[in-house]
Amino acid sequence: MNGNAERDAEPSPWSPRERELLAVTLQLLQQHGYEGLTVDAVAATARASKATVYRRWPTKAELVLAAFIEGVRQVAVAPETGTLRGDLMRVGELVCDQAHAHASTIRAVLFEVSRNPALNEVMQHQFVDQRRVLIEYILQQAVNRGEIDAAAITEELWDVLPGYLIFRSMVSGRAPTRRTVQALVDEVVIPSLTRHGG
Amino acid sequence: MNGNAERDAEPSPWSPRERELLAVTLQLLQQHGYEGLTVDAVAATARASKATVYRRWPTKAELVLAAFIEGVRQVAVAPETGTLRGDLMRVGELVCDQAHAHASTIRAVLFEVSRNPALNEVMQHQFVDQRRVLIEYILQQAVNRGEIDAAAITEELWDVLPGYLIFRSMVSGRAPTRRTVQALVDEVVIPSLTRHGG
Repeated sequence: MNGNAERDAEPSPWSPRERELLAVTLQLLQQHGYEGLTVDAVAATARASKATVYRRWPTKAELVLAAFIEGVRQVAVAPETGTLRGDLMRVGELVCDQAHAHASTIRAVLFEVSRNPALNEVMQHQFVDQRRVLIEYILQQAVNRGEIDAAAITEELWDVLPGYLIFRSMVSGRAPTRRTVQALVDEVVIPSLTRHGG
Repeated sequence: MNGNAERDAEPSPWSPRERELLAVTLQLLQQHGYEGLTVDAVAATARASKATVYRRWPTKAELVLAAFIEGVRQVAVAPETGTLRGDLMRVGELVCDQAHAHASTIRAVLFEVSRNPALNEVMQHQFVDQRRVLIEYILQQAVNRGEIDAAAITEELWDVLPGYLIFRSMVSGRAPTRRTVQALVDEVVIPSLTRHGG
């Protein structure tokens, strides 16, 4: 076993045809937003029957969440750049890119998840837990390399990096850029993680 | 002129009767959420005519945004605790309390603002700009007291403290607590602001 293989993205739980439906969903979401999306349009664009779509995802909210999670699967792969800074920059840039591409979907997903416990369960198990394992893995590697002290890692604040970037992408006119990611990593996250040193 | 008076909350732009309508709106939002709120219910609860409400706030989104901004006005007052840590803790705790009380309203406001440029304008001028002035004032005081270096203040990341706490209150099951605020201030924000020191 090597760390790299262990940290590869888990295989998609969907068949090729299902992945195609989810890709169409994500594309229509980017074009029309959550409000403007209909299951009819997904079925028509993908040349599928509405029944096919509804059989897998009984509600629009479930379809959208599945499409979003499938679309951002690559972020669950550890960057393995060899340095803490490199790994954090890479994760931050990916979150940033995805937040740009899917801002209205993320906003809609947060809204739907907040009033639907079953959707929240899916979100936790298929998305949040993986992100957390990824960040913990990156930090543990930095501890092993002697870059940070193990005491610097806290359960409470594991999601400051992705969380603040997602917040920024939710706020109109404050979409995060590469400069945001760099400042966040160099001026906030690394000073925080190395506070026990020196 | 003294700093304290300068930093008092600006007077409310609303009449006592209007503030009453906004208070009723906020109370109904906390009980029923954004989706469950109707202008009819606001008018009935406040014993006002629907026309009275619509004259001031032509849409539900405008009414909700006004109610939210009015409801969180106190956060725009500088805490003046005498230390950077004290000020940051106080701001963090207030954001945290308000995020708890109004999570579904904040979620709805972010969603409505994102698709309505006029609402976004109101949000920027009546809410975001004040928060920013407040944080900059707190940091400038810390510079004056010699607690931090002026170079530590960056335009890019002024909203890490409120932004991360708001993100946390949006994510189901991760509502921020006093412990979150304390960890964020002591382990992230202060190490970041003091990174140029000794």
